Amino acid sequence: MVGASSDTYKAGYQMLSALHHFPGELYPINPRAHEILGFKVYQSLAAVGKAIDLVILTIPAKGCARVLAEAGENGAGAALIISGGFGETGREGKAVQDEILSVCRKYGIRLLGPNTAGFGNPKAGVSANFTPWIGQLKPGPIGVVSQSGAMNLILASLIHSRRLGISVATGIGNGVDVGVADVVEYLADDRETKVIAVYLEGVEEGRRLYEAVGRATEKKPVVVFPVGQADVGEFAASHTGNLMGSFPLKKAALVQAGAVVVSSGDDLVDAANLLSKVRLQAHRDPGVGLLTGQAGPGMVIADYLRSHSIRLPELAPSTVARIGKLIPPMTFMKNPVDTGRPGPTFRDVLLAMAEDPGIDVLVTFAIHEPAVIDPVVLFAEIKGKIRQPLVFGTAGFPEDVLPTQKELSANNIPSFISPDRTARATRALIEDARAAYRRKRGGEEQPRDPVSIGPMEKAPDEAAAKSILDKLEIHTPSRVVCGSHSEAKKAFLALGVPCALKILAPGLLHKTEVGGVHLNIRTEKQLLSALAEIDKIETAGEKQYLLEEMAADGLEIIIGARNDPSFGPTVLVGLGGTEAEALNDVAIRLAPLSLFDAREMIAELKSSVLFDGWRGGPLYDREELAETVVKIGGLIRSHPEIREMDLNPVRVHEKGLTVLDVAIICA
Amino acid sequence: MVGASSDTYKAGYQMLSALHHFPGELYPINPRAHEILGFKVYQSLAAVGKAIDLVILTIPAKGCARVLAEAGENGAGAALIISGGFGETGREGKAVQDEILSVCRKYGIRLLGPNTAGFGNPKAGVSANFTPWIGQLKPGPIGVVSQSGAMNLILASLIHSRRLGISVATGIGNGVDVGVADVVEYLADDRETKVIAVYLEGVEEGRRLYEAVGRATEKKPVVVFPVGQADVGEFAASHTGNLMGSFPLKKAALVQAGAVVVSSGDDLVDAANLLSKVRLQAHRDPGVGLLTGQAGPGMVIADYLRSHSIRLPELAPSTVARIGKLIPPMTFMKNPVDTGRPGPTFRDVLLAMAEDPGIDVLVTFAIHEPAVIDPVVLFAEIKGKIRQPLVFGTAGFPEDVLPTQKELSANNIPSFISPDRTARATRALIEDARAAYRRKRGGEEQPRDPVSIGPMEKAPDEAAAKSILDKLEIHTPSRVVCGSHSEAKKAFLALGVPCALKILAPGLLHKTEVGGVHLNIRTEKQLLSALAEIDKIETAGEKQYLLEEMAADGLEIIIGARNDPSFGPTVLVGLGGTEAEALNDVAIRLAPLSLFDAREMIAELKSSVLFDGWRGGPLYDREELAETVVKIGGLIRSHPEIREMDLNPVRVHEKGLTVLDVAIICA
Repeated sequence: MVGASSDTYKAGYQMLSALHHFPGELYPINPRAHEILGFKVYQSLAAVGKAIDLVILTIPAKGCARVLAEAGENGAGAALIISGGFGETGREGKAVQDEILSVCRKYGIRLLGPNTAGFGNPKAGVSANFTPWIGQLKPGPIGVVSQSGAMNLILASLIHSRRLGISVATGIGNGVDVGVADVVEYLADDRETKVIAVYLEGVEEGRRLYEAVGRATEKKPVVVFPVGQADVGEFAASHTGNLMGSFPLKKAALVQAGAVVVSSGDDLVDAANLLSKVRLQAHRDPGVGLLTGQAGPGMVIADYLRSHSIRLPELAPSTVARIGKLIPPMTFMKNPVDTGRPGPTFRDVLLAMAEDPGIDVLVTFAIHEPAVIDPVVLFAEIKGKIRQPLVFGTAGFPEDVLPTQKELSANNIPSFISPDRTARATRALIEDARAAYRRKRGGEEQPRDPVSIGPMEKAPDEAAAKSILDKLEIHTPSRVVCGSHSEAKKAFLALGVPCALKILAPGLLHKTEVGGVHLNIRTEKQLLSALAEIDKIETAGEKQYLLEEMAADGLEIIIGARNDPSFGPTVLVGLGGTEAEALNDVAIRLAPLSLFDAREMIAELKSSVLFDGWRGGPLYDREELAETVVKIGGLIRSHPEIREMDLNPVRVHEKGLTVLDVAIICA
Repeated sequence: MVGASSDTYKAGYQMLSALHHFPGELYPINPRAHEILGFKVYQSLAAVGKAIDLVILTIPAKGCARVLAEAGENGAGAALIISGGFGETGREGKAVQDEILSVCRKYGIRLLGPNTAGFGNPKAGVSANFTPWIGQLKPGPIGVVSQSGAMNLILASLIHSRRLGISVATGIGNGVDVGVADVVEYLADDRETKVIAVYLEGVEEGRRLYEAVGRATEKKPVVVFPVGQADVGEFAASHTGNLMGSFPLKKAALVQAGAVVVSSGDDLVDAANLLSKVRLQAHRDPGVGLLTGQAGPGMVIADYLRSHSIRLPELAPSTVARIGKLIPPMTFMKNPVDTGRPGPTFRDVLLAMAEDPGIDVLVTFAIHEPAVIDPVVLFAEIKGKIRQPLVFGTAGFPEDVLPTQKELSANNIPSFISPDRTARATRALIEDARAAYRRKRGGEEQPRDPVSIGPMEKAPDEAAAKSILDKLEIHTPSRVVCGSHSEAKKAFLALGVPCALKILAPGLLHKTEVGGVHLNIRTEKQLLSALAEIDKIETAGEKQYLLEEMAADGLEIIIGARNDPSFGPTVLVGLGGTEAEALNDVAIRLAPLSLFDAREMIAELKSSVLFDGWRGGPLYDREELAETVVKIGGLIRSHPEIREMDLNPVRVHEKGLTVLDVAIICA
């Protein structure tokens, strides 16, 4: 512990104090002290005279490189730097940061930090964190990774407040060596950890995180609370030196990797609590059975779940009939089942629901009234008799409810102290099962071999870009590139009416705005007038004409693809048309993606109803659109030189589709 | 207390037990008992021999009417019926319910319930609620009204868990006499109540509630948690016999009335806590200054606030310069201000922020570390020096943090134990100030005198409906109603090209679908062909032709108006066009509404960007649209016989607008 201090205000004192109960050997280092908190203090690392496993630094940034080198010489395999003053402060700090990283690489030291509060591993008795209460955390099944050191502490305290335990709680800080993905990988294999809870700001190695989360979710649930919905990028950069990147992309990547994404720290802890106790099998759309002792909270739970697209299927008539014999006729029995005030038949109603084939999870809510219903006794007795996981929600004064919750927790029954929290946690359970299903189905329907179409021009014009789509068997309008008016006239006769005439000029964007696009040309007179208009446009280089057949009617869609600096190849699909684009109804995935994933993207659009005969309109070809999205994903995946491409608009017909325009920009 | 019982499982025992400490006189009634819980039991109400203020009934439904009549004879002014078995169970129960209501009306008894757990007033020592722990609630500033008896208890327990107090907590149940609006009115005038917290399911008298909330918010904040986003209507009807109605309308009405609308019970309690301690002046868009001792939680708060459209304005350069002298240069200072770990200068940074003219609320977050910063001392000292309300967020183990929170609460400083909850409560504070501003501005810009256009036809055809709009000076296309082909030909010459020809036939909906609309008619030949097509359409009655001038280009919008059975006259504005309608981007208000309200409706559309030169497009005439919405609001308000009207599409031009089609349906 380099930087040990007797000044109670300093991190060097608080860290030592937190490590007080460490069961291994601890060597405080400070050239100007002899004893702190009863520990013998060493003048330097060298003075310790023994091999060191982990070196903790609470000294200013500029002294760190030298100490790390000393530690390396001393055989240290790991280091933790608490101090700030590195990459997050600007260029000078970044240089110091690069220096410490190169020292770590030289000696093979894995570094946590700098600029973090540290980590804790309650079972091992390691509280390498300068916060006074960190040593009181209890061991348990929740592994925490937080990009922010303070959020790591806050999540740990929320977990502790709910009488739950932690396997490892890690604050990443600047993450110059050990990053979020590394800790996720570690926790995926850690036997003490049953669920991984992540707090995320910016992600520099998005693709690596995506892959780490994807591998982890095959073993255990991963729940993530990402921030960055709003523009807080400048603040974030000053915090850990990371860039925020696109929030929708980050969220889409996490969901695609199989994580459950939540929107608050409280939700993160509740979801982790539930998922540490129970996990559903992979399931496309699990059905929730809700049994409630009071109608109001049942309403709150049902409303939350249904408005988040979670099914509470109507119980089978035989189940309803069976329940009808158990509770008064005035209550609701189809699901939710409202027993009115819970009575002695509560148990039998629960068993009846458990035998209903449509129910995959049983959620039970009852206000804390041990005289009326004792959930500990009830669930202990019933648990062996039902195949579904149980979630229990209650309400009452914490001092009354907590002992019950503790006993339930010991029996691995998750419980929550308000209807809202019961509902939110249940949602996480369902989302985890759905994510597992998507990954399984996506895995079965592997995308075809990556499509490679040979070397790419840097900025292909529209005709060249459309030829690339031809190679992928993505339909574009019949067309002729014409160098002169006479070529255009000849092509016009061959193509048939109506036609579209467009300007072709390298590097020209916004064709429409400059008058370079003329539609519905039906006569030679109209053609000549369009050619004349195009001739008026000033362009830097050579100019050609693109004469195309007009496409049939259909639903206008956009498909985009982009090589993101953090997440790599990505695809986007959304409703097209100027007005729809203002509403930003899009779905994003990382490439490559399966046909199953592409179908899910279309289904997740708010406007997906437009495909299905909206207001008496036609059915549009979802399948062909999904195929096209998969192909574009394959293309961007196998051509890293493509920076960005836009198929806009794509007109989806009742059968097939036509890409009306496409732009490809290479790096 | 009629139905007093010695069976500990029965509500009649539990109610008596809860009332145990009632400081007034209590008369348990049961013909078959003599003493329960130490109370003398009376055989009947008549046997009491004294006047009664409140009669509580825990007996079955069918005995209630008789007992209420006895109580009425005995002078009772109020009754509470706990039992279920009334309107919520169907027709028979409804008849029993109607009977008890007529008894209450006869004797002038105000009735709470039936089908509720009751109410509590801790200061008066009244725990008229059968839940055992109800008597432990502390008196305090939060008034609770809940449509569900159980949610009333749950909210009370959440309030109690946060060491807060209650003025009155009321469960409405079936609400056959005293409803949510009545209790809101009562609490608005109750001196103990500083904030009103409402849980709401269906609303049968929406307009009354709207008015009650509107009057209440002028005196104190009202926070509402409405359920019913998803389809839980059938369950709701079985619960309290109320219909759910439209959720977007309910929410819009509450916001328009000035309430803060939240989406969970936890949020309701946090918002009520904050608003019971501080309230902002009416303000269009208050600026939040955020000072944080740790960057991570500061990020969470800033991200939540910004992504919910709350401003954290950049601090003035002079403020930043002043802060720069107080804290290390590596931290962020523009707002949020991140002090790094809080130190002795924390106070001075807070004072510097408080003097910044852009800051209307100060939010401070610091992990619980009393050795480093003691918020109780800090805020007590600073409070007199600053003009803004303070909100404090913290985190740590509850046993450590709660004493601090209690002391802060005593000093009227609201505090919250996680960054999320700090952010959510702050949002409620801002929303309350914005609602007050809207009400003030809306009040200043009163709508013009209600527009009345004389007696209405039951189902005016398009031409007649457009003539109604003419009287309101809402622009429609020039048009001629023609009874024959020759009249149409004559009109065609007079109108100029292009024209539209439409069928006019009483009661015919879906004109377009049957081939009754022909656009862009430029030649007499086209006119004749369109007339011929219309002649083919079979109609029940007389058929006429409507020949209209084609309208200029513009943005397509829909305006709707409707007399809702619960909320009365309402107006809606939304983006038009088939695709946009699928995305359901609409804003709703109750009529009458001011020009200010109408402008806000347009601004709240996601697609409002389309008005402002989206992608190089034109600026559309928001003001004329707002004027039109106000006029339609006036029309529906002064013509209760109009059941529904649709102006679809309305084409908004760069200057002015044109209503292309309108349908009016009268009751």
